[in-house]
Amino acid sequence: MNFEYNEKTQALLEKLRAFMKEEVYPIEQEYIHAVENGENRWKTPELMQTLKQKARDAGLWNLFLPEEYKPYGAGLTNAEYAPLCEEMGRVLFSSEIFNCSAPDTGNMEVLAKYGNEEQKEKWLVPLLNGEIRSAFAMTEPAVASSDATNIETSITREGDEYVINGKKWYTSGAMNENCKIMIVMGKTDFDAPRHQQQSQILVPVDTKGVTIVRPMAAMGFYDEPIGHAEVLFENVRVPAENLLVGEGKGFEIAQGRLGPGRIHHCMRLIGCAQRALDMACERVEARVAFGKPLAKQQSVRESIAKMHCDIEQARLLTLKAADKMDRYGNKVSRDLIAAIKIVAPTMACNVIDESIQMHGAAGTSQDFVLSAMYAYARTIKLADGPDQVHMMQLGRNLIADKNA
Amino acid sequence: MNFEYNEKTQALLEKLRAFMKEEVYPIEQEYIHAVENGENRWKTPELMQTLKQKARDAGLWNLFLPEEYKPYGAGLTNAEYAPLCEEMGRVLFSSEIFNCSAPDTGNMEVLAKYGNEEQKEKWLVPLLNGEIRSAFAMTEPAVASSDATNIETSITREGDEYVINGKKWYTSGAMNENCKIMIVMGKTDFDAPRHQQQSQILVPVDTKGVTIVRPMAAMGFYDEPIGHAEVLFENVRVPAENLLVGEGKGFEIAQGRLGPGRIHHCMRLIGCAQRALDMACERVEARVAFGKPLAKQQSVRESIAKMHCDIEQARLLTLKAADKMDRYGNKVSRDLIAAIKIVAPTMACNVIDESIQMHGAAGTSQDFVLSAMYAYARTIKLADGPDQVHMMQLGRNLIADKNA
Amino acid sequence: MNFEYNEKTQALLEKLRAFMKEEVYPIEQEYIHAVENGENRWKTPELMQTLKQKARDAGLWNLFLPEEYKPYGAGLTNAEYAPLCEEMGRVLFSSEIFNCSAPDTGNMEVLAKYGNEEQKEKWLVPLLNGEIRSAFAMTEPAVASSDATNIETSITREGDEYVINGKKWYTSGAMNENCKIMIVMGKTDFDAPRHQQQSQILVPVDTKGVTIVRPMAAMGFYDEPIGHAEVLFENVRVPAENLLVGEGKGFEIAQGRLGPGRIHHCMRLIGCAQRALDMACERVEARVAFGKPLAKQQSVRESIAKMHCDIEQARLLTLKAADKMDRYGNKVSRDLIAAIKIVAPTMACNVIDESIQMHGAAGTSQDFVLSAMYAYARTIKLADGPDQVHMMQLGRNLIADKNA
Amino acid sequence: MNFEYNEKTQALLEKLRAFMKEEVYPIEQEYIHAVENGENRWKTPELMQTLKQKARDAGLWNLFLPEEYKPYGAGLTNAEYAPLCEEMGRVLFSSEIFNCSAPDTGNMEVLAKYGNEEQKEKWLVPLLNGEIRSAFAMTEPAVASSDATNIETSITREGDEYVINGKKWYTSGAMNENCKIMIVMGKTDFDAPRHQQQSQILVPVDTKGVTIVRPMAAMGFYDEPIGHAEVLFENVRVPAENLLVGEGKGFEIAQGRLGPGRIHHCMRLIGCAQRALDMACERVEARVAFGKPLAKQQSVRESIAKMHCDIEQARLLTLKAADKMDRYGNKVSRDLIAAIKIVAPTMACNVIDESIQMHGAAGTSQDFVLSAMYAYARTIKLADGPDQVHMMQLGRNLIADKNA
Repeated sequence: MNFEYNEKTQALLEKLRAFMKEEVYPIEQEYIHAVENGENRWKTPELMQTLKQKARDAGLWNLFLPEEYKPYGAGLTNAEYAPLCEEMGRVLFSSEIFNCSAPDTGNMEVLAKYGNEEQKEKWLVPLLNGEIRSAFAMTEPAVASSDATNIETSITREGDEYVINGKKWYTSGAMNENCKIMIVMGKTDFDAPRHQQQSQILVPVDTKGVTIVRPMAAMGFYDEPIGHAEVLFENVRVPAENLLVGEGKGFEIAQGRLGPGRIHHCMRLIGCAQRALDMACERVEARVAFGKPLAKQQSVRESIAKMHCDIEQARLLTLKAADKMDRYGNKVSRDLIAAIKIVAPTMACNVIDESIQMHGAAGTSQDFVLSAMYAYARTIKLADGPDQVHMMQLGRNLIADKNA
Repeated sequence: MNFEYNEKTQALLEKLRAFMKEEVYPIEQEYIHAVENGENRWKTPELMQTLKQKARDAGLWNLFLPEEYKPYGAGLTNAEYAPLCEEMGRVLFSSEIFNCSAPDTGNMEVLAKYGNEEQKEKWLVPLLNGEIRSAFAMTEPAVASSDATNIETSITREGDEYVINGKKWYTSGAMNENCKIMIVMGKTDFDAPRHQQQSQILVPVDTKGVTIVRPMAAMGFYDEPIGHAEVLFENVRVPAENLLVGEGKGFEIAQGRLGPGRIHHCMRLIGCAQRALDMACERVEARVAFGKPLAKQQSVRESIAKMHCDIEQARLLTLKAADKMDRYGNKVSRDLIAAIKIVAPTMACNVIDESIQMHGAAGTSQDFVLSAMYAYARTIKLADGPDQVHMMQLGRNLIADKNA
Repeated sequence: MNFEYNEKTQALLEKLRAFMKEEVYPIEQEYIHAVENGENRWKTPELMQTLKQKARDAGLWNLFLPEEYKPYGAGLTNAEYAPLCEEMGRVLFSSEIFNCSAPDTGNMEVLAKYGNEEQKEKWLVPLLNGEIRSAFAMTEPAVASSDATNIETSITREGDEYVINGKKWYTSGAMNENCKIMIVMGKTDFDAPRHQQQSQILVPVDTKGVTIVRPMAAMGFYDEPIGHAEVLFENVRVPAENLLVGEGKGFEIAQGRLGPGRIHHCMRLIGCAQRALDMACERVEARVAFGKPLAKQQSVRESIAKMHCDIEQARLLTLKAADKMDRYGNKVSRDLIAAIKIVAPTMACNVIDESIQMHGAAGTSQDFVLSAMYAYARTIKLADGPDQVHMMQLGRNLIADKNA
Repeated sequence: MNFEYNEKTQALLEKLRAFMKEEVYPIEQEYIHAVENGENRWKTPELMQTLKQKARDAGLWNLFLPEEYKPYGAGLTNAEYAPLCEEMGRVLFSSEIFNCSAPDTGNMEVLAKYGNEEQKEKWLVPLLNGEIRSAFAMTEPAVASSDATNIETSITREGDEYVINGKKWYTSGAMNENCKIMIVMGKTDFDAPRHQQQSQILVPVDTKGVTIVRPMAAMGFYDEPIGHAEVLFENVRVPAENLLVGEGKGFEIAQGRLGPGRIHHCMRLIGCAQRALDMACERVEARVAFGKPLAKQQSVRESIAKMHCDIEQARLLTLKAADKMDRYGNKVSRDLIAAIKIVAPTMACNVIDESIQMHGAAGTSQDFVLSAMYAYARTIKLADGPDQVHMMQLGRNLIADKNA
């Protein structure tokens, strides 16, 4: 047993922290304002390209891609990537700087794993180069999508093509003007066994019949310039080879991508929470009420202590899950992945909320990143499966194991 | 002891519910879109004036003003007003329809109580008629304003005028283009005893030196078209008679207005929470996952039951506080007012959050009012004194009483 | 609406408080020691009879019995009785002083309502006079008894007798040497519709075949000298007229008694919680750590404030339930009764636990009543139906009402 | 980073689990009854000596003693000991079987570190052999002992002796008839700087002037046959060499012992919690209510899942603290030790309480170990410093570090 990051991780983490300190924190507010005040709020500010180049030059690029996808990516294990991903989580938009932002990460993994050469050339390479962005269209407004068997979008074979019809929403990334490709989840066979009805298919955003209807808010935030779109698919036709792996493999592909996707979100949320705590520690020292700094209040100290304990525990659980995924694979680690998905978003919500309270009205304002972080943490309690679904599965498995 | 609303209240409540059903719910989304899509997001949609006239015609006007301010207002007690205020709370913008929205309500009370005839004529009458709006400038960005003795804005006598310098923010209402008058809290004497340094003064919004700097966000929401402004006061000069009551009375006036102000917020929040629960009950019945409606899940039933218990308890506490204010005055009721201010916002946050979770991604979207309600509830944990200040005072008083 | 106790209640409450102050608090520890150190821990100390006589002389007797049971009892409404019952809750054994202790109260109501003249003469009169005690045998070790349809004890008609076989536990009161009569719940027809299988029957404790096996602990406490017994029924024969009302009425009788029974427990728990808070207020003022009284710590004040808010809310909810039962009957009030049963025990557990923490090690000791109160509150989360069953029913009803 | 136990630990853990399975669980209830039904409830049942011998033979002896105390003990690191200590925590009395029970463990460490040869011969050797037991007398009834500077017991030099006067309580172990030696904390100099007033001194239990007054309850439990005593010291005289290290070193010695002591308690509590969860998993599968096993209820699954997440997180935090103590020493690890002391007891209380609820009335009974485990977990929220003191220190340190 060893709770310390290995040397490779420590070296990368040091480099990343230096990058964040020199290049990111100083322009955080500027970047946010650039998005807000730009002519098109779905256009990524120029600044991002500059930062990307610097990150690439610094060797901080595609850090999320594990060994198996070499030559692509940095070849880090999940456990090695975790502290880096956490660090990026401290600034909401910063993952993109290092080409480590969702949903591109998951899409790149899927393309690297299942794409044919042409698809890789066309979509994976520019994604790996950070030249384009992508989206993953799964959730539907009409049904409880946490139960994937409810999904209603149809993917129908007609000759050499598939025809797609359906309505998606919260398709993250699809608002961005640089989003070029979507992976769409739908059903190729409504009568197959429950988990073999679904398929996933590549749909270029500019395909006829695809309409980006509107941006969806997440707790009042629109996450510009990335956004979460409502997308309409009306008789959208794509070549048959755009179907990934084969008909009926959609559920399996989703499971494959959601494991790492969930843990990445949790790592980022730990970064959010840690930053919220760091900010709180500074605020309570600086702010005076009723004759003394807030930091001298026993209640504030208790709250700070509990925030720290909660973060540290969630961090360790996430690292353990990452370590297990590295050693035994995602499938064997499903219970630990469920556990962090249950723990981290709620922890982050609570910690950030406490920090907001310590900041007073300022904590709810646009001058601090706390409210946007809260919205992010809150939505992850629903994204990639609501807490309740993960608790259902984890609880069921634990009971079954015990009574086996 | 009697837990039933009196006949007067029941009759008004019935009328109000009918009005909400016929006039307000049907246009709720339309109104929200009108604000969003208007040319100027700080301009109240025309629709509001139509609704106001209908409400006035229906005898649902200025319901908040107690007997003592007759002929103004409906002459209701706090306990009679409470269920009506709760009902209005179900639609975030609806208080204005009945001319019962903050901060106008508090400002009207202050003007009715302390204004001279000219001031009443100029500001109170149009406020009572719902022709103009107003703001209350208290919170400052530079200091922990929950401790009113920290306030730094200066109000300095120079001849027949007072000169005001300072920076305020979260001045609710001041973004609205129809906001004409502000009540400003500042210090006339920095060397007086702690609670006699502050004064309140009337400042027309168009006075030279007043700058509405920018709108402030509250958890991602800007509460258009009302808004919360950052306001700069640079050598702002107003006639000496604009000072309310007298120098050093600012703290006392603030205490007077905040009691009813706090309870009104709590009543509205109970309305928010009840609506969130009502929506949840409908959603879980309609939504199917893993083979049955959510409503059949034991966890959902437990959650619904707890939401109900929490709402009902907070409602009763609020009603008791209102009843006590009616019988013994605001000062004697301070502990009960503190109690509801501690209880209601947190309860509303929790209940609304649960309802969001039951709604899935939709619950976080702009299509449902839940996320905006959450933001409102969350900010009231800070507005009019953060929870911690109320707990400090209530705790201290309870200990003192017991050891007296 | 009126949140003040009526004059009758206030007068009785004043008298009761005086009695508690003069007669009960001063001997509380003495009484506890008398039980502990007596030769037989299931024998009620002599002191109790003295106190009973004083209470009767003072007109504080059988306060629980509503108007409908006149000439028995004080003829109080539930809402009038509630504050008195709360007051008695402050000392765990004090309800018996006023002949208001469970399970005698419920048994007396059942006997008054369903007993024939002979049964009343034999059991009800001595119970009303506080001369004997009684027990109610419902819960069984072998099955989840919260679902009454699980009950396995059989009550079989044989000629003029019923024969009872089964095993009960947590039969409260049955350990006491003065316990003379039990009401036993069992099944007369295992094949009838779910809620018509059960019957209730009177069984004198000294009937052949009845074995008081052992006392059951409740969170480490044995509640001497009353106790909760494991009771074995082996071919126990009683006359047929001992069956209450008729075969198949057991579930209905249980429902009838459990409504008031539950609310009485909740009232007592509010008394427990209030006393725990009162004790905490005194302790934190007296105790010094790190240079100042605990009472000056912001965290302590926050905690005290929250304890107060939680108690007050639960109290109001209980009073509202009582008031509704008085106005509309127990059946119509089922949702409110469920609500208080969900709220009050958990509230009491939390408040008492906080008070224990403020008392340090002493709070966990036998020198303070807090740990025994905690155990009582904790067991009420299970007794008369676990929280989950009440939440299931309340949640289901709320959803159904909303979607009706 | 590596989350797996090393081979040495795994081998010992396997051996320990086998021992528990074969020797301990089967006699758990028998042992508890032997204590209850023995003539002297403060006499350890004979059975214990048999078990001790078996454990010693199996090489499961003095596992707590780190390398530095060789040849005594097993020479395990804290991280290696942790999973073993957790395993022992599953049966409340089992630590003694392996000679790893508090307060002997801490006392042995202190004697090994600070005792002279004669003291080691006399007290340490029989303790290491499990022949006698010992106590640690620190907490006092009259003052808030969490602030060690409050302690009032005096240790006064008179010639070649020290004279001790004072009253202690919750002196764990001192009720046991085999308890021979106490380490007593008191003040040798009331005027020295705050943390140099205290000293620790060895006091044989049979010294004149020592009175074991009575056993103290902890949440209704007396923890027979070990117990927590009230102890009176009246002019107790011991040789001067019984003073450990030197005058004024008492606070330092206490700090040294409390670090490992706290983490051992936390490890045991994790064992308690894990067992409570294991029992819950079995119970909910076996118990049927309202037509299906509890295990099928979504609420039960959610609860089970959360229990697991909370245990696993606390376990990881404890292991990290142990690992840090091993690498950098106790002093550097103080924040992590504080963190686990804050986290583990509350976690254990919550998990055990949930398991009790799932067990119904049985969960509160003497037939299951849950209520005793709850009492243990609850008292650790106070023992070795109440949560609030640890939160105060941790919060203060975190804020200071951030603003350094």
